[in-house]
Amino acid sequence: MSLFRSFTLLLLLFSFNRASAQNNIIVLQTDFGLKDGAVSAMKGVAMGVSPGLKIFDLTHEIPNYNIWEASYRLYQTINYYPKGTVFVSVVDPGVGTSRKSIVLKTKTGQFIVTPDNGTLTHVAEAFGIAEVREIDEAVNRRKESGKSYTFHGRDVYVYTAARLASKVITYQQVGKLLPKQVVMIPYQRSTFMNGVLKGTIDVHDVQYGNIWTDINDDLVAKLNPKFGDILHFKIFNKGKQVYGGEAPYSRTFGDVPEGKPLAYLNSLLQLSFALNMGSFADTYKIGSGSDWSVEVYKK
Amino acid sequence: MSLFRSFTLLLLLFSFNRASAQNNIIVLQTDFGLKDGAVSAMKGVAMGVSPGLKIFDLTHEIPNYNIWEASYRLYQTINYYPKGTVFVSVVDPGVGTSRKSIVLKTKTGQFIVTPDNGTLTHVAEAFGIAEVREIDEAVNRRKESGKSYTFHGRDVYVYTAARLASKVITYQQVGKLLPKQVVMIPYQRSTFMNGVLKGTIDVHDVQYGNIWTDINDDLVAKLNPKFGDILHFKIFNKGKQVYGGEAPYSRTFGDVPEGKPLAYLNSLLQLSFALNMGSFADTYKIGSGSDWSVEVYKK
Amino acid sequence: MSLFRSFTLLLLLFSFNRASAQNNIIVLQTDFGLKDGAVSAMKGVAMGVSPGLKIFDLTHEIPNYNIWEASYRLYQTINYYPKGTVFVSVVDPGVGTSRKSIVLKTKTGQFIVTPDNGTLTHVAEAFGIAEVREIDEAVNRRKESGKSYTFHGRDVYVYTAARLASKVITYQQVGKLLPKQVVMIPYQRSTFMNGVLKGTIDVHDVQYGNIWTDINDDLVAKLNPKFGDILHFKIFNKGKQVYGGEAPYSRTFGDVPEGKPLAYLNSLLQLSFALNMGSFADTYKIGSGSDWSVEVYKK
Repeated sequence: MSLFRSFTLLLLLFSFNRASAQNNIIVLQTDFGLKDGAVSAMKGVAMGVSPGLKIFDLTHEIPNYNIWEASYRLYQTINYYPKGTVFVSVVDPGVGTSRKSIVLKTKTGQFIVTPDNGTLTHVAEAFGIAEVREIDEAVNRRKESGKSYTFHGRDVYVYTAARLASKVITYQQVGKLLPKQVVMIPYQRSTFMNGVLKGTIDVHDVQYGNIWTDINDDLVAKLNPKFGDILHFKIFNKGKQVYGGEAPYSRTFGDVPEGKPLAYLNSLLQLSFALNMGSFADTYKIGSGSDWSVEVYKK
Repeated sequence: MSLFRSFTLLLLLFSFNRASAQNNIIVLQTDFGLKDGAVSAMKGVAMGVSPGLKIFDLTHEIPNYNIWEASYRLYQTINYYPKGTVFVSVVDPGVGTSRKSIVLKTKTGQFIVTPDNGTLTHVAEAFGIAEVREIDEAVNRRKESGKSYTFHGRDVYVYTAARLASKVITYQQVGKLLPKQVVMIPYQRSTFMNGVLKGTIDVHDVQYGNIWTDINDDLVAKLNPKFGDILHFKIFNKGKQVYGGEAPYSRTFGDVPEGKPLAYLNSLLQLSFALNMGSFADTYKIGSGSDWSVEVYKK
Repeated sequence: MSLFRSFTLLLLLFSFNRASAQNNIIVLQTDFGLKDGAVSAMKGVAMGVSPGLKIFDLTHEIPNYNIWEASYRLYQTINYYPKGTVFVSVVDPGVGTSRKSIVLKTKTGQFIVTPDNGTLTHVAEAFGIAEVREIDEAVNRRKESGKSYTFHGRDVYVYTAARLASKVITYQQVGKLLPKQVVMIPYQRSTFMNGVLKGTIDVHDVQYGNIWTDINDDLVAKLNPKFGDILHFKIFNKGKQVYGGEAPYSRTFGDVPEGKPLAYLNSLLQLSFALNMGSFADTYKIGSGSDWSVEVYKK
């Protein structure tokens, strides 16, 4: 019967749309905070492009101008969203200067709309670059925004993201293809040599004060600790030791008494240090970023 | 005409789905804060389960590990959402230990996905337990999450909530039925005896510094104050008096001059104390939780 | 074929609905913060009215009782949302007193649900008043909320906004028509006389400490600075000078060295002052609001 055939066609059509790249989801990250109307204006612009968009926040509490942390938060989050999600990251100390505005497509099928200023350091390395395109502002810029030079997040980035996510434009229509490379922030990579793990303190688990390194589970496996084994570790700031101590390699926080240190794999399976029910970072005044490194070994 | 009959069938089908328990709404509460990607990753997981879900936040600013406040915020909020809403609460100092992961269905038709660690104290008492089921992690756990032991919020709780809310699984498929009981935090219940109301300071109205007790309007009715009557009240910390004063029983804040105290029924119809345009809690250094109690009487 | 004609009719019907005033979008602003369940309860009430609503936040971090800033944030944001969006603003020191609860429709086609206490000062002036209606609480109030006098945001404002945005009620059904006027906060308007721009410091760009005045690009054009020209400016608190200095009129922050001042047009095209990579407001202890004014001139 033609009615059911038509429904079938309709369903196929929907399925086809959902199987293709973009999925109507956009996720926003900025260092704007939530005290004024800036993030909300960005969402309004997206709704003006397509009311069918689903808009989420990654975070808007990136410390001002901290590109390293913006890069890390994208890496920490993007692969938990479905393929085809379009991310917008606006941590942009160079707004209005010559840094390029780009949309990177990862090999895992996500899009990131951002100034090319180092924000893609972790993502490019971890998930790979499928393509990079430069935003053509002649086309991909809000019509009424000609005289404003300082709010690209609203006038260019979220506008382009919304059009891409809702398929008003294809990825090709973002703008011209660039070489498969982005601006990278230099940092010390994690290693295992002579029984010692070395790495960088990528970031803190801010709410709790836990210390997260870039030493992943594969590297930890080379040291091969068993749960309960004591790990010795030193923390350095610009090469100078600021902490030395030990902690059992633990499956969960509850494995050590309150206030005591533990070493564990965090939710990204990277070696981390914490105090059970306390703040390691506050207690020992430990920072994060490329200036902060660790060494870890068994006795 | 068969076309319209088919449309009618289709509409009936939609109506039937909307009339049944779950409604595609999930509401998240944690103590994670919003400075990193943790909450966003949870939302991404939910989108991966079903892009039709509507996701809201209760709050992510529960003080770290404060199960009492998590319990109170659920109680304060859940019944303002439509029946069938699925709540997720992750305040979980015992992550990785033996506390159970459960989904409680209230007698009022809401679902709460949470570790069973006291988080359900207020809800169980106020709204009643219809059923409790233990999450079967063999089925209800993200496929790729096998090696991570520390982020149940993302890998188990929101994943289960998303599947339940979008009817990928039924409530029965969450896991095995448990007895109708949950871990309860002990606390002093509100009473009226010999002309004196006694109760606990449940929580502060954080933004304003108002003091909210657990003495509800029915109990207040036994003291029977009229608007304008002076109430005398004492505040105790672990049984020791730390404040004594008086305030008119008021309909609204504007009934007293700026800076002056008032007693009133808050938005949950519980007896509360405040300074008009000031912070009672900050001014008199008053805390909240099971250690903080009040006595109230008329002269 | 009748099937396709029916689909066409259906599509027309959808298009018609989308072309009419309200668009199922509501945007919330309060001074409640996000630490408790108040904002979430408001969203739950909206979902109970219509699960098809799309709910966004403007901000919930308006400083307590600061009606001026609430007014400014609405002005800064509302026109970036599609026409027909329904805004709710609850900064309401007079809750429970005789201030009116109203819904204003702007000449640009937006709705704002708010107490009439000055919150509409900037919006009325910038976008014009099409109509003002007083909320008839006999109809437009949650059924179960009779005894609560203190949470109009949940029981009246968001409830009315949700019904209006989802077309459960028409704008006429909000309540009776009032005169086209609202309570206005008095403040000094921007001027250009004898080569000197004068204006008010409307607000700070909070996250960065930039100073935003109410002197718009048309007025700046009368002073006619070229990029690179030095502007001299003085800042006054209640008429007393607290700062005097100079800065180049700049296209972007990158036009001056780190730590140096610049003058520029912000994203709303209003004259603003900043330190590149620093906080002008913190460094020089500058506030905002009707007590803070500026004078600007070329040598």
